[in-house]
Amino acid sequence: SFQAGTVPFTPARFVTRTNTCGELRSAHVGQKVTLYGWVQYQRQGLFLVLRDFQGLTQVIIPQDEAHSHLKELLSSAPLESVVRVTGTVSPRPLGQENPKMPTGDIEVKAETAEILNSCKKLPFEIKDFIKKSEALRMQYRYLDLRSPRLQSALRLRSRLVMSMRQYLCNLHGFVDVETPTLFKRTPGGAKEFLVPSREPGKFYSLPQSPQQFKQLLMVGGLDRYFQVARCYRDEGSRPDRQPEFTQIDIEMSFVDQAGIQRLVEGLLQHSWPEERGSIMTPFPSMTYEEALAEYGTDKPDTRFGMKIVDISDVLRGSGVHFVQNALSYPHGSIRAICIPQGVKYLTNKDLESLKESAKSEFNQCCALGALRLLSANLLEAAGLALRDPTAFHFLWVVDFPLFLPKAENPTELESAHHPFTAPHPSDASLLYSDPTKVRSQHYDLVLNGNEVGGGSIRIHNAEQQRFVLEKVLKEDSEVLSHLIEALELGAPPHGGIALGLDRLISLIVDAPSIRDVIAFPKSFRGRDLMGNAPDYVTPEELEPYHIQVSWPLEEKEAKKN
Amino acid sequence: SFQAGTVPFTPARFVTRTNTCGELRSAHVGQKVTLYGWVQYQRQGLFLVLRDFQGLTQVIIPQDEAHSHLKELLSSAPLESVVRVTGTVSPRPLGQENPKMPTGDIEVKAETAEILNSCKKLPFEIKDFIKKSEALRMQYRYLDLRSPRLQSALRLRSRLVMSMRQYLCNLHGFVDVETPTLFKRTPGGAKEFLVPSREPGKFYSLPQSPQQFKQLLMVGGLDRYFQVARCYRDEGSRPDRQPEFTQIDIEMSFVDQAGIQRLVEGLLQHSWPEERGSIMTPFPSMTYEEALAEYGTDKPDTRFGMKIVDISDVLRGSGVHFVQNALSYPHGSIRAICIPQGVKYLTNKDLESLKESAKSEFNQCCALGALRLLSANLLEAAGLALRDPTAFHFLWVVDFPLFLPKAENPTELESAHHPFTAPHPSDASLLYSDPTKVRSQHYDLVLNGNEVGGGSIRIHNAEQQRFVLEKVLKEDSEVLSHLIEALELGAPPHGGIALGLDRLISLIVDAPSIRDVIAFPKSFRGRDLMGNAPDYVTPEELEPYHIQVSWPLEEKEAKKN
Repeated sequence: SFQAGTVPFTPARFVTRTNTCGELRSAHVGQKVTLYGWVQYQRQGLFLVLRDFQGLTQVIIPQDEAHSHLKELLSSAPLESVVRVTGTVSPRPLGQENPKMPTGDIEVKAETAEILNSCKKLPFEIKDFIKKSEALRMQYRYLDLRSPRLQSALRLRSRLVMSMRQYLCNLHGFVDVETPTLFKRTPGGAKEFLVPSREPGKFYSLPQSPQQFKQLLMVGGLDRYFQVARCYRDEGSRPDRQPEFTQIDIEMSFVDQAGIQRLVEGLLQHSWPEERGSIMTPFPSMTYEEALAEYGTDKPDTRFGMKIVDISDVLRGSGVHFVQNALSYPHGSIRAICIPQGVKYLTNKDLESLKESAKSEFNQCCALGALRLLSANLLEAAGLALRDPTAFHFLWVVDFPLFLPKAENPTELESAHHPFTAPHPSDASLLYSDPTKVRSQHYDLVLNGNEVGGGSIRIHNAEQQRFVLEKVLKEDSEVLSHLIEALELGAPPHGGIALGLDRLISLIVDAPSIRDVIAFPKSFRGRDLMGNAPDYVTPEELEPYHIQVSWPLEEKEAKKN
Repeated sequence: SFQAGTVPFTPARFVTRTNTCGELRSAHVGQKVTLYGWVQYQRQGLFLVLRDFQGLTQVIIPQDEAHSHLKELLSSAPLESVVRVTGTVSPRPLGQENPKMPTGDIEVKAETAEILNSCKKLPFEIKDFIKKSEALRMQYRYLDLRSPRLQSALRLRSRLVMSMRQYLCNLHGFVDVETPTLFKRTPGGAKEFLVPSREPGKFYSLPQSPQQFKQLLMVGGLDRYFQVARCYRDEGSRPDRQPEFTQIDIEMSFVDQAGIQRLVEGLLQHSWPEERGSIMTPFPSMTYEEALAEYGTDKPDTRFGMKIVDISDVLRGSGVHFVQNALSYPHGSIRAICIPQGVKYLTNKDLESLKESAKSEFNQCCALGALRLLSANLLEAAGLALRDPTAFHFLWVVDFPLFLPKAENPTELESAHHPFTAPHPSDASLLYSDPTKVRSQHYDLVLNGNEVGGGSIRIHNAEQQRFVLEKVLKEDSEVLSHLIEALELGAPPHGGIALGLDRLISLIVDAPSIRDVIAFPKSFRGRDLMGNAPDYVTPEELEPYHIQVSWPLEEKEAKKN
């Protein structure tokens, strides 16, 4: 439950306002009040509506001669100007109450006022803002931040994180530890931003997660660590990814997979916003194998059925050539999904797009998973209510493979997640004989078909860690020597998880993008469109870092001309 | 008060231990318990002491034949190995209780045990660790983290920050907003780390503070913002500075200087650790001018007197040549500090070092301030208790100058703090006539002679901001065009503060360095001695960022040979 939100606070303390613009009710009638806010609306010099973070209040502009200066001041204030108004709370005239407005029973008769900041011409009308391009809204992010949509998303995010902290720190003995973001490259860290240092040729790296540090904290006996951690990932241009993002980062000593899962279920239940209903625990669990077989993905959306079924036996005697051909392969099978009411809802055009998808995804094991999601979208576009938008289906996916064949060279193996993941206890001996068969102690948390968290029990044995790095992954373990050495000097068994905060919040507030729950997001090209970052710097500014720009040839040429 | 610390929590939940090593008392006698911890001490196969984050428990090793395997296991476990012990809580034999140990009334008779991780040879004996060089302790930081000193500093830090959050977020309506750390260079941002982007020649910059973003949040109507903000500053090698550090970052709309001061006093009072006594509010306040005149510094240590006094009048008729000479200058004066009991405590050698300091600081207005501090150190080294180590003297220093002459060219001006600081209301008109005379609305928070915070009321008027940047500071305001434009589109009056968390915590726990309150600090050269960061990267890794290393000549030569 939302403890943080239910504690009454005093937004008037430390400032000279007596009330916020969302507070006044009939009970305040007769009181002299001072409000500060933005001019939301103004009508013919008769009244204006003042807005702050908490709501709207109607202010009546006096019409008598003695207040002509005040009338002039308030009726000429441009929309979105910042104004102080002092006046008396009065009941609205009979019949003019506005039941849709929390302050709709009253109005404030202005007695004095001050324009604290007169708003220049807006780049567009605020009421049309939502229809403007996202690029324009990002350029004027501070205007977009005034919208109820962003105000409520950012405030919910703050309250939810606070509630998570109370659960972890106050109720369960976790220690909030800040770990460095200036570190060095990890093996395979191609997506890590580099930060030139003042030592020639040496670079820091902005880590993709505090993984190594949180493990070292366990070796250091911290027992229970958490951090709302800023993480960095340079993926170039990818839709709905951010170069910097936030994760709720957790690690515990002496814990097993079930322990972490119960902790996270309790954490989410405790911090879940009341207005979004409640969530049931424990969350259901599914193996990676089941998820792939039944949903064609490792992050199944379990809000609807249409599971994948094996119809090989039905078709075995069909005599259809391509069916027979498929079944003749080892492990060959025929699988299908049944689209209920497809006949009623799907048009020929829909069927065409399903065919196209099937063709483009052909030969991928996830082809039917993609078809299933596309079918659901088509059914919903046609008006069938398939997925309840207010439902939250959490799911644990477990028993992932520990290693996967490398895409570029399938005879070599890479970690399915990261090289610190411990093997499944039942498969530990396979590590030395047939590593491809080893399942891991990794677990993913899936919400409505989105991965919102992932973690694992870690390797705490130096020999095993060295074997995985050197023998299985053929990595140079030297770069991780500090971690391996730490495992030799009294490392407790430990494990943890990281929850993707941006994605989680965007699902809770039903926002189309994580950009809608981040105060100052970057564009999908990684640009800050408001402040114009990244930007050029002078060669002199690069000097202390012993680097220079390698201009691509065309840029060089363009600069010459 | 320490609300976070007083809520009982359940360190046994989600794990298979029944108790921590600091928990067991006489009331537990007879209970079967399972403990996990590190072997702190082992004696002749008779007993061992198990340690975890919460304390120590004595474990009795059974000596009978039936448990010979258990005896063998526990007596051979090297110190700092990680062990699980299951056994029964028993009272210690009469006379063997240890009143200095919270668990000193009991011991646990081991029944089963498991070595979870056998500790290899330690790089040094743990008990001598504190005497080792700091570089060695930083290399094996995870071992140092096991010390009571670091455990308690990090736990106090976590609890104190939690308590601050509760005050700001739950009691006073602040919103915790995360702001970007990948931004662009600000004017005069020579100390900002650069992060190469994938766009040729373009760089992000890691900001020294969220200054611009927090002001934009106010323009965006957030009303009250706070963040425990990671900040970056590249100062090369400087003692007791860190390239990344943390500040409690606060901004409010519609607030004045007194409002921010009362807020911060309430914040510190609320979160102050009980075990450090209580602090009185409001904090005393002193102008910059007074501070310089009486203490010779803008961060006076007010725990002791020895103030600077003007003795010009006393000496005016003295006839001493150098005195007369000094007094003949405009504003010439003779100032002195009186060192009480100096005669009794200061040796000739002490006086020599005072003379040396006076010589080296000569011609600096802060010479007497430095002498005052040096005298205090000498007196204390000689045994005089001058400054109470348990006293916390907070002080506001106000009315700083808005601009200072540039060190390299005194005819030009630079901001005393930053270009967004608002002028003092009484001096606003001087801004256009004599900017050197303008006092600012900046305030510093000083604790025992250390600056622990600083903030200001900001300029919220675009014209004034443009004038300061272009006319006074002669900066190109284009790079800040987004901020100036924001001030034109309905910016409320606003102000804020940032508290240096690392320094504040180090003063509270009386640690000699901020490195003692940071989990993984860098060395004074900016190196991570544990993980060896920063590190070399390959030219291929630099390619996506369109940069190359400019090797200094000697490095190039060395590489050739």
